[in-house]
Amino acid sequence: MPLSFAPPSKDKAELETGPAFTPRFDEKGLVTAVVTDARDGELLMVAHMNAEALALTIETGVAHYYSRSRNRLWKKGESSGNVQTVAEIRTDCDQDAVWLKVTVAGRDATCHTGRRSCFYRTIGVEDGRATVAITDDHRHFDPADVYGEK
Amino acid sequence: MPLSFAPPSKDKAELETGPAFTPRFDEKGLVTAVVTDARDGELLMVAHMNAEALALTIETGVAHYYSRSRNRLWKKGESSGNVQTVAEIRTDCDQDAVWLKVTVAGRDATCHTGRRSCFYRTIGVEDGRATVAITDDHRHFDPADVYGEK
Repeated sequence: MPLSFAPPSKDKAELETGPAFTPRFDEKGLVTAVVTDARDGELLMVAHMNAEALALTIETGVAHYYSRSRNRLWKKGESSGNVQTVAEIRTDCDQDAVWLKVTVAGRDATCHTGRRSCFYRTIGVEDGRATVAITDDHRHFDPADVYGEK
Repeated sequence: MPLSFAPPSKDKAELETGPAFTPRFDEKGLVTAVVTDARDGELLMVAHMNAEALALTIETGVAHYYSRSRNRLWKKGESSGNVQTVAEIRTDCDQDAVWLKVTVAGRDATCHTGRRSCFYRTIGVEDGRATVAITDDHRHFDPADVYGEK
């Protein structure tokens, strides 16, 4: 029987310090997942999980998400081979987000652009406009090779 | 004139590698903000920002969010004194999330429970049920002193 989650308590103290993990899914049935590299804490990606993805991740130790663009369960690395093995999962005070510390297989890259992290750009301001500058341009793979033409 | 953001390009390459920061706000007008400690990369919190909060954060260098529970702009630390000074802001490949590296003033605590991070609990499974165990119980302040009775 797959792992299921009890509905969250309305008692704040229970939610913040009780022994049950009762994720607070939003109106779309999702929680936010923050993913860092278990080796050095680098932020790799932000994604979303529904109850199925969360249960599978906890049970198998391999990160699964819910793709909002494709509207389906998504095992990270299913195309690229960059599968994430979960070392630890945490939750926050109000249980609407989870933090996965992962080890990345394959090419040690998480972003579909081939970079290690999705957060490869730094925000700035120039002439009153918000800008982004690429601060990590090292590609671990060529997306065309991995995903084909897109 | 406050900083405003151009609408996101529909061209994927432009969104992923172009020079403009054009945040992809969701249907509620929000992006996800992941906040880590600039000193050691520890994940402190996950929150949300609307355009106003994002512009204020970029312009002032002090973290502002949009509180979904209180439906208002929220300068982090306005009650607790635990103000966040932003060392760097990054965005991800599809520009629907930002990553803030911050220095925390006051009591060096981000969570309203008095702990350094909101992610003070680790998820596990016991007898087929999802559990949480407190892995950081060090309180930097007493919430009753800081926020009054809540």
